[in-house]
Amino acid sequence: MTLNIVLVEPQIPQNTGNVARTCSVTGARLHLVGPMGFKVDDKKLKRAGLDYWNLLDVTLYEDLASFFYEVSDGALGKEGAAPDTSGYGFHYFETNSPYVYTEPEYADNAYIFFGSETKGLDDRLLHRNPGQCVRFPMRSGVRSLNLSNAVAVGVFEVLRQWGFPELRPF
Amino acid sequence: MTLNIVLVEPQIPQNTGNVARTCSVTGARLHLVGPMGFKVDDKKLKRAGLDYWNLLDVTLYEDLASFFYEVSDGALGKEGAAPDTSGYGFHYFETNSPYVYTEPEYADNAYIFFGSETKGLDDRLLHRNPGQCVRFPMRSGVRSLNLSNAVAVGVFEVLRQWGFPELRPF
Repeated sequence: MTLNIVLVEPQIPQNTGNVARTCSVTGARLHLVGPMGFKVDDKKLKRAGLDYWNLLDVTLYEDLASFFYEVSDGALGKEGAAPDTSGYGFHYFETNSPYVYTEPEYADNAYIFFGSETKGLDDRLLHRNPGQCVRFPMRSGVRSLNLSNAVAVGVFEVLRQWGFPELRPF
Repeated sequence: MTLNIVLVEPQIPQNTGNVARTCSVTGARLHLVGPMGFKVDDKKLKRAGLDYWNLLDVTLYEDLASFFYEVSDGALGKEGAAPDTSGYGFHYFETNSPYVYTEPEYADNAYIFFGSETKGLDDRLLHRNPGQCVRFPMRSGVRSLNLSNAVAVGVFEVLRQWGFPELRPF
């Protein structure tokens, strides 16, 4: 089974490095959507996680519209960065979403999306797809989890539901 | 319900800062066990998570023997840093542990332990308490998750089992 992590416009290289490390540990595929706040040869990125580049399945995209175009074989291409994505197994992780992240049944080849550390995901995309938006239960009045922490919690919830396939057995 | 996070000899301030941020988000209590690789007024620590100090319940201990002594009201005090801790609701997160972290039923006032980024937890403690040792399923041949990522996954598994008590409702 395949899990896809989509980081949209990540800004802090250490966070993306730690996400890459989570991917190398779990086998999840990584999709990096620009514009990003760093270059992929950034030292901080590598120090945090990319000494396992050879274990990573990573793809770069110029922007979110390009991502949707490529992943949908062009079907979502005409709608820019905020298309109706129902039916695609996409899950948008964002504060204030209607569903808790443990509620969906994640299907094989699911994509879990996380926005930038500063802006989160685009409101237009979220408003167009409320049924695909999930959140972490939190105390009120606090800022969100660190980005790489949020990704790790999301990844391991999906893998838990799947019974940790292809990882070292129980 | 109360969840306790125990970081034993953490070395990298950004990781402890991110764990502090996870605590501020979830209400988990933080126990920092020395010797640590930084001071608690470290700028990197604060930048990563401690602008919510007022939301944190954090306790410092000189070393692990002191932690066991204080938490057990002296009952574990004579056995140093590797006592038999059965019956205490302690869970040691470490690579190669016999159980997967989703297997235990975490009780109220559980303590989840994480070792330093460089050394992990003390082998003597783990060998004395194999029934309390849990791990994350991983691909073989890779290094472990980033420390703050590991803590976040552990915390949200416990809270998931508990139904996310006292956090914003479903």
